Amino acid sequence: MPIPFTPLVARLPAAIPFVGPETLERQRGRVFRARIGANESAFGISPRALEAMRTALAELSWYGDPENHDLRTALAGRLGIGIDSVCVDAGIDSLLGLCVRMTVEPGMAVVTSHGAYPTFNYHVAGFDGALQAVPYRDDREDPQALLERQRETGAPLVYFANPDNPMGTWHDADTVRGLIDAVPDGCLLILDEAYHEFAPADALPPIDTTNPRVVRMRTFSKAYGMAGARVAYAIGHPEVITGLNKIRNQFAVNRVAQAGALASLHDDSFLAQVREAVREGRDRIHALARRHDLPSLPSATNFVAVDLGSTQRAQAMLQALAQADIFIRMPGVAPLNRCLRVGVGTPREHAIFESAFERILPTLPSR
Amino acid sequence: MPIPFTPLVARLPAAIPFVGPETLERQRGRVFRARIGANESAFGISPRALEAMRTALAELSWYGDPENHDLRTALAGRLGIGIDSVCVDAGIDSLLGLCVRMTVEPGMAVVTSHGAYPTFNYHVAGFDGALQAVPYRDDREDPQALLERQRETGAPLVYFANPDNPMGTWHDADTVRGLIDAVPDGCLLILDEAYHEFAPADALPPIDTTNPRVVRMRTFSKAYGMAGARVAYAIGHPEVITGLNKIRNQFAVNRVAQAGALASLHDDSFLAQVREAVREGRDRIHALARRHDLPSLPSATNFVAVDLGSTQRAQAMLQALAQADIFIRMPGVAPLNRCLRVGVGTPREHAIFESAFERILPTLPSR
Repeated sequence: MPIPFTPLVARLPAAIPFVGPETLERQRGRVFRARIGANESAFGISPRALEAMRTALAELSWYGDPENHDLRTALAGRLGIGIDSVCVDAGIDSLLGLCVRMTVEPGMAVVTSHGAYPTFNYHVAGFDGALQAVPYRDDREDPQALLERQRETGAPLVYFANPDNPMGTWHDADTVRGLIDAVPDGCLLILDEAYHEFAPADALPPIDTTNPRVVRMRTFSKAYGMAGARVAYAIGHPEVITGLNKIRNQFAVNRVAQAGALASLHDDSFLAQVREAVREGRDRIHALARRHDLPSLPSATNFVAVDLGSTQRAQAMLQALAQADIFIRMPGVAPLNRCLRVGVGTPREHAIFESAFERILPTLPSR
Repeated sequence: MPIPFTPLVARLPAAIPFVGPETLERQRGRVFRARIGANESAFGISPRALEAMRTALAELSWYGDPENHDLRTALAGRLGIGIDSVCVDAGIDSLLGLCVRMTVEPGMAVVTSHGAYPTFNYHVAGFDGALQAVPYRDDREDPQALLERQRETGAPLVYFANPDNPMGTWHDADTVRGLIDAVPDGCLLILDEAYHEFAPADALPPIDTTNPRVVRMRTFSKAYGMAGARVAYAIGHPEVITGLNKIRNQFAVNRVAQAGALASLHDDSFLAQVREAVREGRDRIHALARRHDLPSLPSATNFVAVDLGSTQRAQAMLQALAQADIFIRMPGVAPLNRCLRVGVGTPREHAIFESAFERILPTLPSR
């Protein structure tokens, strides 16, 4: 082969973390009637954001501000921190990649949970880290196990999501603070809070940007309904943020997306509506599970893990739902993969899902 | 320092390739009256793209198709190549970073031209490559010198832009083909064609995706006026494209931007108008230079390098133009930095620029 790939890239698999719903639609030759598989928002974007973005389209010929100054200023003001503690980038996926690149040398251990966010693992593989995955405990990420594995391996990087994806569970602020406090010098904890707007207030420890051992990540993709826009941010010690700034693509964020995110941030009533709608949607999923004597996990996210009792049953349900033109996903590894991850959808999507779910359920193999 | 930066990231400078105009405006406390410094388009976006993007905003809650399938299909159809020879990503900047990461191991030589695109150099530094820069020759990139330096160093990666930024000059297709043909196995040539829509047809060699030693890059940022959207693409052998796909952020491209790029591609009359307007703008800049007995370089881009005779004079002009609220840039290194890089603007921007230029010119130091 004449192409001078690095040995790492040569041996990386061509497989990718997620097959998108559009790809599945092309393979099936049919569109989905319900799109509740990617933890996207069913409630659109803020009317203020829409207005700001329609206006900003007039300036699309200009690159966005590479410093993301106005958005960072607004975020910092909201959070009561300095602007130098905020790095805006084109999605948490990108920020995760930067964190790995910033701290991991080939062969170094990186700690996460078995079954947690696959794109983090993709980045660890992509920078030749040695992934160390500890099991979930009672369907939650296990802070003690993460810490122990970090100690055993000397990993420079640990990934922890709160609330968690794909299970939707969470830890309270005291537990998270305990984890943060126990991270040793020479290790950086990624605290992925993509779903934090859906969590109870007591799940979120206060932000402390004097601590260089934790970097928190938040996004406009979930509650603000801007997944297609690619805007997220990291919150951390200014030195951590400087590290990200040294290697990020400076002009990465879409100019229209910058305007939309800024406008979203000022629309508290929209956010409150979405949070309420997500609560109602979760309740509806919990109620469905209850009606069929299925456990469903408490969730602090915009999806609910419904326990079908076995991997076989969950996979059969997933496949039958796809046949019924419903896009949905499930955890990839045991023991999480006894569950179906049901995203909160529109009322119409819930109706379509419930109808199919109730039709399919009696046809599943017994546990 | 408790932060576990890799030794590379620890020693990387915090400096970035470009300070954006918004940053300068904040520092000055005054907005620019003319924005002709970032090679952005002065002619907006296609009306079809605008319409498509306004519509696509309704689906912003959904992630974009990570395969960029529809856009790749349209591009491949236009170019008469297979879809597997196209990788769409969030800007050429990102694609350049991926190419470096894909081929360069720490300490390896990477060849470019002294004064060429700084963001490429940023990526080479960011992956610990050893930059080897050969001089321009007669204000054009020098294919022979690039090849010789590659041979001397065994570099796995060579960067060549045609047409060139910051000088606007170009080589004809035969010369470029000669360069491509001379690239040895074990080396990848990046042929950056960001400005190709502004070039004469005979500057562009035919595309040959059976050749694994060249990857070409094009963008919607320039002629299509979508710099703020972040959409570009690489064209190459399917194995090269597979390499990029192994490491790129799968969901990197904004969903609205995907729709806008696709619609742009079908608006040939808009493209023709922009090309004509850019030709007129270049003529206007050439005419201004001629009126003042200043050489200006022939350009196949949307900017013109005006030769002020010395670095001192060019820098003085740049500073005085900034005082006059005109955002403009110049090449960063000798001997290119005797020139001012004047972007094609709107008629109003040209008028503002010309008036200031003619007022300042007599005040400059003699050469």
